[in-house]
Amino acid sequence: MITRAELTEKIVAHKIMRGVKWSDIAAAVGHSKEWTTAALMGQISLTRDQAVAAGHALGLNFSEEELALLMTVPYRGSLPTAVPTDPLIYRLYEVVSVYGTTMKALIEEEFGDGIMSAIDFTMDISREANPAGDRVKIEMTGKFLPYKTF
Amino acid sequence: MITRAELTEKIVAHKIMRGVKWSDIAAAVGHSKEWTTAALMGQISLTRDQAVAAGHALGLNFSEEELALLMTVPYRGSLPTAVPTDPLIYRLYEVVSVYGTTMKALIEEEFGDGIMSAIDFTMDISREANPAGDRVKIEMTGKFLPYKTF
Amino acid sequence: MITRAELTEKIVAHKIMRGVKWSDIAAAVGHSKEWTTAALMGQISLTRDQAVAAGHALGLNFSEEELALLMTVPYRGSLPTAVPTDPLIYRLYEVVSVYGTTMKALIEEEFGDGIMSAIDFTMDISREANPAGDRVKIEMTGKFLPYKTF
Amino acid sequence: MITRAELTEKIVAHKIMRGVKWSDIAAAVGHSKEWTTAALMGQISLTRDQAVAAGHALGLNFSEEELALLMTVPYRGSLPTAVPTDPLIYRLYEVVSVYGTTMKALIEEEFGDGIMSAIDFTMDISREANPAGDRVKIEMTGKFLPYKTF
Amino acid sequence: MITRAELTEKIVAHKIMRGVKWSDIAAAVGHSKEWTTAALMGQISLTRDQAVAAGHALGLNFSEEELALLMTVPYRGSLPTAVPTDPLIYRLYEVVSVYGTTMKALIEEEFGDGIMSAIDFTMDISREANPAGDRVKIEMTGKFLPYKTF
Amino acid sequence: MITRAELTEKIVAHKIMRGVKWSDIAAAVGHSKEWTTAALMGQISLTRDQAVAAGHALGLNFSEEELALLMTVPYRGSLPTAVPTDPLIYRLYEVVSVYGTTMKALIEEEFGDGIMSAIDFTMDISREANPAGDRVKIEMTGKFLPYKTF
Amino acid sequence: MITRAELTEKIVAHKIMRGVKWSDIAAAVGHSKEWTTAALMGQISLTRDQAVAAGHALGLNFSEEELALLMTVPYRGSLPTAVPTDPLIYRLYEVVSVYGTTMKALIEEEFGDGIMSAIDFTMDISREANPAGDRVKIEMTGKFLPYKTF
Amino acid sequence: MITRAELTEKIVAHKIMRGVKWSDIAAAVGHSKEWTTAALMGQISLTRDQAVAAGHALGLNFSEEELALLMTVPYRGSLPTAVPTDPLIYRLYEVVSVYGTTMKALIEEEFGDGIMSAIDFTMDISREANPAGDRVKIEMTGKFLPYKTF
Amino acid sequence: MITRAELTEKIVAHKIMRGVKWSDIAAAVGHSKEWTTAALMGQISLTRDQAVAAGHALGLNFSEEELALLMTVPYRGSLPTAVPTDPLIYRLYEVVSVYGTTMKALIEEEFGDGIMSAIDFTMDISREANPAGDRVKIEMTGKFLPYKTF
Amino acid sequence: MITRAELTEKIVAHKIMRGVKWSDIAAAVGHSKEWTTAALMGQISLTRDQAVAAGHALGLNFSEEELALLMTVPYRGSLPTAVPTDPLIYRLYEVVSVYGTTMKALIEEEFGDGIMSAIDFTMDISREANPAGDRVKIEMTGKFLPYKTF
Repeated sequence: MITRAELTEKIVAHKIMRGVKWSDIAAAVGHSKEWTTAALMGQISLTRDQAVAAGHALGLNFSEEELALLMTVPYRGSLPTAVPTDPLIYRLYEVVSVYGTTMKALIEEEFGDGIMSAIDFTMDISREANPAGDRVKIEMTGKFLPYKTF
Repeated sequence: MITRAELTEKIVAHKIMRGVKWSDIAAAVGHSKEWTTAALMGQISLTRDQAVAAGHALGLNFSEEELALLMTVPYRGSLPTAVPTDPLIYRLYEVVSVYGTTMKALIEEEFGDGIMSAIDFTMDISREANPAGDRVKIEMTGKFLPYKTF
Repeated sequence: MITRAELTEKIVAHKIMRGVKWSDIAAAVGHSKEWTTAALMGQISLTRDQAVAAGHALGLNFSEEELALLMTVPYRGSLPTAVPTDPLIYRLYEVVSVYGTTMKALIEEEFGDGIMSAIDFTMDISREANPAGDRVKIEMTGKFLPYKTF
Repeated sequence: MITRAELTEKIVAHKIMRGVKWSDIAAAVGHSKEWTTAALMGQISLTRDQAVAAGHALGLNFSEEELALLMTVPYRGSLPTAVPTDPLIYRLYEVVSVYGTTMKALIEEEFGDGIMSAIDFTMDISREANPAGDRVKIEMTGKFLPYKTF
Repeated sequence: MITRAELTEKIVAHKIMRGVKWSDIAAAVGHSKEWTTAALMGQISLTRDQAVAAGHALGLNFSEEELALLMTVPYRGSLPTAVPTDPLIYRLYEVVSVYGTTMKALIEEEFGDGIMSAIDFTMDISREANPAGDRVKIEMTGKFLPYKTF
Repeated sequence: MITRAELTEKIVAHKIMRGVKWSDIAAAVGHSKEWTTAALMGQISLTRDQAVAAGHALGLNFSEEELALLMTVPYRGSLPTAVPTDPLIYRLYEVVSVYGTTMKALIEEEFGDGIMSAIDFTMDISREANPAGDRVKIEMTGKFLPYKTF
Repeated sequence: MITRAELTEKIVAHKIMRGVKWSDIAAAVGHSKEWTTAALMGQISLTRDQAVAAGHALGLNFSEEELALLMTVPYRGSLPTAVPTDPLIYRLYEVVSVYGTTMKALIEEEFGDGIMSAIDFTMDISREANPAGDRVKIEMTGKFLPYKTF
Repeated sequence: MITRAELTEKIVAHKIMRGVKWSDIAAAVGHSKEWTTAALMGQISLTRDQAVAAGHALGLNFSEEELALLMTVPYRGSLPTAVPTDPLIYRLYEVVSVYGTTMKALIEEEFGDGIMSAIDFTMDISREANPAGDRVKIEMTGKFLPYKTF
Repeated sequence: MITRAELTEKIVAHKIMRGVKWSDIAAAVGHSKEWTTAALMGQISLTRDQAVAAGHALGLNFSEEELALLMTVPYRGSLPTAVPTDPLIYRLYEVVSVYGTTMKALIEEEFGDGIMSAIDFTMDISREANPAGDRVKIEMTGKFLPYKTF
Repeated sequence: MITRAELTEKIVAHKIMRGVKWSDIAAAVGHSKEWTTAALMGQISLTRDQAVAAGHALGLNFSEEELALLMTVPYRGSLPTAVPTDPLIYRLYEVVSVYGTTMKALIEEEFGDGIMSAIDFTMDISREANPAGDRVKIEMTGKFLPYKTF
């Protein structure tokens, strides 16, 4: 049997061999590039139709077993270690490590005691042109969920 | 001697006792609320003047030793464990854990091989009104730094 | 040889391909959906008859070796890391992390020094309709076991 | 300065010396025993009035600094290690470790892809009389939060 | 305030200074030496009378606060690290590490699927005379608890 | 090449398929059930004759390579993690975690400074009939080894 | 499918079998020996032409799939554990462990608050002849990136 | 008693209050700024004269006990965690994590099997002017130590 | 109360202030320098007379409480982390890490299945003059303990 | 491709099947049994001639790929976990854990500040006859390397 991790590697390799972009696959699937990439990276489940469409965009004809894997709600978590070693991903972890208590203080001051949902959540990654060097812009919104008194 | 962690607790307790907001302190210091909170949480160093101003806003007259602590570039890292236990902060960690490889794939596709700087970096936390429940909005921008060939 | 983990993946894939529900398999096996799912997930051993029945419900004809695996008392523990990364499972871990000392204080006040058994234990997962959004309801009961004086 | 952990120890010691029950303190505070215990254990913030009332029930007159600690939204997490060593709390962790994937499978089959909220969450701990030995009953409900497509 | 760990150190130091044995203290308390030692080591709670009696045997007059600590059900776990560094205690851990799967296999073959209780549990430590060198004998009995089908 | 771990799984599967007990295999090998189980679980090396005899009792004809694996002194340690997740084995670990300092105090008081050997060691696992529920009895003896002064 | 780790092992084995040096491969690829080695070790992505050229220098004709792996931006991190066990690499880790706070103090005194980039970074490894024994010389330069005030 | 860590904090605070530079203290001590900083950071022992001289440069008159601490060979290791959280120090760790196997490959190809000493070791940190932004330059040399055949 | 760790620091500081050598203290105590150093470092218990003698050699008059600490069998383990950060001690750990399986293979070939005791154990540390640079010589002997068949 | 770990297992299995001793292989290779065992265990690289000779002594005709693996300088570290679980190897780790600070104190008193090299290092393992039971004798010598002042 193929595992989900092996299927992810197969998808990434075919994407490179075929020269297709994540936004192209997203268009075929009918969702944002952020959602589609996360799904193909093994973090979100697809419907059969979405999986078939993604396969076509990649030039792949997924087997029944591969489709079942893509349709399964995955055990989420995309990193091999609790502290990521990849520099790009580490920088995001560093933001949480260094500014985590700051974000907590400001969100709680503005909203009261609660959290920002990571489930009712959107993410948008874009380029911000800047003469001093273009910037990566990450926008996240999550519904504020107040702690319920019980 | 007082430690930096004890000074942080003292600052937070006085903020509550005095009923002052982070944005009020920020106005006194002359920077954004995000930067000022991070500085008082022990993640950024202040100048003597900024430290004195923050103290006044808190109703505190920092000692020479406390000022020295606030002026020292801190050993950064605001969390007691590698995986945060606080639910609000954990949700941010979860975003990195679940969507880290997705963010990496999309940033690299858009910009090429490199990272988003966590140093030449800005952060903005705001409320997004929404009839289905207000949302926390976090915007981060970081300069894209391409890997240099050597 | 097939491993227990591979057999679990095979069972889950066939469940999806066949479109059968856990409660259907449970009916075939003759136990609750909670018990049956845990058994097929590799946490409880089945008898030969139960294993054969589960296989039929999944459209699978288990080999002798696969039956032996299903009949073996497993080395229990269903998660790849001590702190789970999957958000659904993490929320349960968060309850233990945040409210663990609270539960300890209240159980001990009510019952005296002892524990709630996780062996003489039942679990029931159901939907609680709610106009503000349906709720997941988890009921657990475990026999109270007082510490024996020796 | 007193730390939050030291304040928790002081509260627990006075509770024992005074012979008061969590439900008595809860009545004074005006919330459930579960919520009140969690708050005094350092996992939930109290208002000034609630803190003062809890103090009176314990025979304690909290100082301004102690009140500020009780009013601060805490850095949540009540256990000294990621895997708890206390047997009562470990049994709850064991349930997550052994039955975590089972709970995930059943919640997802019933509700679709999403989580049970640990924020919009209630918890009730009670005694279930049973001739074979009384049972601890833990009921949790959390709002089902579906993953949002973005 | 004194912590439980500091109280344990005080008890051990007074035991040495006074030259009293654990079995003497146990006789004063009215329980086995195993139970009494565990209680004074901070793993079991004492009643007020037991705590007072233990104090007398140690030549100590415990304060109200110390009595409250001894009467509190402790957060159990007596070792500073998950893998013990003390050689005597490590040898016990080694037995679990090396022979754990063997004990599991044999208990399950004899009793079926279940566990040996560590709560309804007794422990006896004694000397076994032997011409080749005396032996430490540890006898443990724990009630067998079968997994309940639910 | 087959690994030792795979050989252990093969042995356990054949034991179940053949319906043979550990004590039957032990009789064929000529040692106690405790020793024989530990050896087949990969913690003790066998002689060629013992390995062949164990194979016959299991209905297996071990290859030369499998015999070599069974004859190799193994890298000992039977558990996948430092803190075991299996509930039966965890209870044994819990005994060490909770009562470790107690056992240390009592052994040292009786014998002086030293350890109980885990090498010159015997283990016996048996059933103790009890009207309140049968008990698992584990007896261990280990030679006392005093610290040598050097 | 071949994994990136297996491809690295294949490259290293062929380098030894062919008796070619890293600087020879670097000359074929058209970059420094440091950059080329890092790329073939799986830490930097190559273009198709660079990958083909490296293959020729190694006497290897990479398959389409192997080329795709070499062209993928890798999940960086070359070591199997957070603390390296290999003595050569450990010595570099030791420098960070022992002198890390020193380097931080000196860089911050010279440049102000900021970091040395590990992305806009060069590395040069050379031999320094010395009558007391030749020395390994490692020169690193990284652009200084000041913390941006936001 | 003061601990070494508290003495380090005292030294750093006085350095800031006094406005003195590491190179000034180094001149008073008579060594490089790198060596002197490491010594005052608690990683190298000083002679009595060096310690007294450093104290004078800092405006401090060390007590006998403080001098003893500065003269003790320290238990080296300057970071609170195995993976550093401070961004400046993390970047150095990242270099080891990402390029460690590359450095190993190149040093071994040039020198044969052995290591670069971290004891017979020098370190120099300087500013490299660059129109694209000044660069931090770190030069390390360590004696090559070949593995001895035994 | 003073802790054992604080007492160790006090002993080391007085040894430096007094300018006395470990072998001098050992002569006063009447044991080897290895044994005496380990005892004063908190790894071996002393008798009252030995403790008093060691104190005199250090110019210290230990209090009753300090004597009790020195007479207690310690919780052994002298290092703050599982992997030591101090370079001198790390090199010893490295020997175990790199050559551990080699030592196991050779001891088992010579002696059969068993271990070298770390309890019936001696250690001798000396200087070996060598024109190419003096060498540290560590000799350890431990009684061979064969695994007992049970 | 065969991995280095698989090749080690193959070598050990053939050694047992062939009944050859490490000292026999060492004689064929022309080095000590300690060095030869470490090399075949994957911790030291061999020349082609040494590898071929070792193969002949084992009755193995290594393939080109296997020879390349034996000739590669390995990523050193022979143990699967930071704290070894095998009792024989653990005892060596225990010596470092318990006596590490003692060894540090004595080496530094004799030699000054520096380390014992683990590279310019020899190891000798032998049997010491003793009427009270033969002893394992481990002698290590390592060149003393003083810290260089820079």
